Amino acid sequence: MEISIETTQHTQFVDITDRIQAELDKFPKAKNASSLAIFVPHTTAGITINEHADPDVVADIITALDKLVPWRASYRHTEGNSAAHIKAVLTGSSVTVPLRDGRLQLGTWQGIYFCEFDGPRQRRVRLCL
Amino acid sequence: MEISIETTQHTQFVDITDRIQAELDKFPKAKNASSLAIFVPHTTAGITINEHADPDVVADIITALDKLVPWRASYRHTEGNSAAHIKAVLTGSSVTVPLRDGRLQLGTWQGIYFCEFDGPRQRRVRLCL
Amino acid sequence: MEISIETTQHTQFVDITDRIQAELDKFPKAKNASSLAIFVPHTTAGITINEHADPDVVADIITALDKLVPWRASYRHTEGNSAAHIKAVLTGSSVTVPLRDGRLQLGTWQGIYFCEFDGPRQRRVRLCL
Repeated sequence: MEISIETTQHTQFVDITDRIQAELDKFPKAKNASSLAIFVPHTTAGITINEHADPDVVADIITALDKLVPWRASYRHTEGNSAAHIKAVLTGSSVTVPLRDGRLQLGTWQGIYFCEFDGPRQRRVRLCL
Repeated sequence: MEISIETTQHTQFVDITDRIQAELDKFPKAKNASSLAIFVPHTTAGITINEHADPDVVADIITALDKLVPWRASYRHTEGNSAAHIKAVLTGSSVTVPLRDGRLQLGTWQGIYFCEFDGPRQRRVRLCL
Repeated sequence: MEISIETTQHTQFVDITDRIQAELDKFPKAKNASSLAIFVPHTTAGITINEHADPDVVADIITALDKLVPWRASYRHTEGNSAAHIKAVLTGSSVTVPLRDGRLQLGTWQGIYFCEFDGPRQRRVRLCL
């Protein structure tokens, strides 16, 4: 199972909760699984779970990561996108979410975000039951 | 499977290793599982695994996160707890721990910590076999 | 399933992708599994997934973590390695990677790195199918 994401900005958190649920809905065996592992097969993007109610939260997270890992610094990597790689390490490449009867068991305020750190790009997220 | 945690401080790392093991002990099927996914359904709390021997380690981790993500800064989110959301991103919402015969297979010095970043609050942790 | 790693430097990212795949190849049941959980049973080491093509990327990640978490600061923990514990929290103790027919399904540029933050030491990584 896989979903495709086309990011439109250089740094962008895309709420993919509904798309993951829609993908799960296609697979009857999801109803018997206790959890779903979500994996990002990229090195300049990550995955995280955080508030999906107020978009200012995501804006604050993006700003905070930019402060912690400035885009311009004395990096060695000649492609110039080392900050994106470092942010991917800080957010992580996988999360595991509980399932019940095929439904994601997130907290009230939680959404699952694909974290683009070097877009815009065509991206993918893999789902493992 | 779920455990409840009542945090008592604004920022607090609660060692929940024994409570998770006690919960596992109630479920015979845990004996056949190879791993346990642990999930935090909150957006201002995280989960991490680190030293449980010297409490100064956890104190140092809390202080370091406070320095990296100051409570007061020019955040947009009007609830005033953006730092807690950002720390939750840095620590993460899930970990997966090996099991053998229903027992958590942690390293000698490891404990599983619920990370409260905006307490005190009533919290939950979900366990997925 | 477990692999041993002997780190040779104080701070070192060791690409263990091939060793994990070699271990998986010994277990026929890996062919039926949809994912692999990888767990580090240490408190001063972590695990992350990032670029394995240009070693400068890993060098930049190491440097960035050193800047975020300086080795010398006013830490309480008397062993003097609090920075290693904090970096372990930031990178994390577990990742979950998709499998298909017993093969790790990583992205083109991804490698799985054991992150030594207080070496050289004898270390282990646990694999859970």
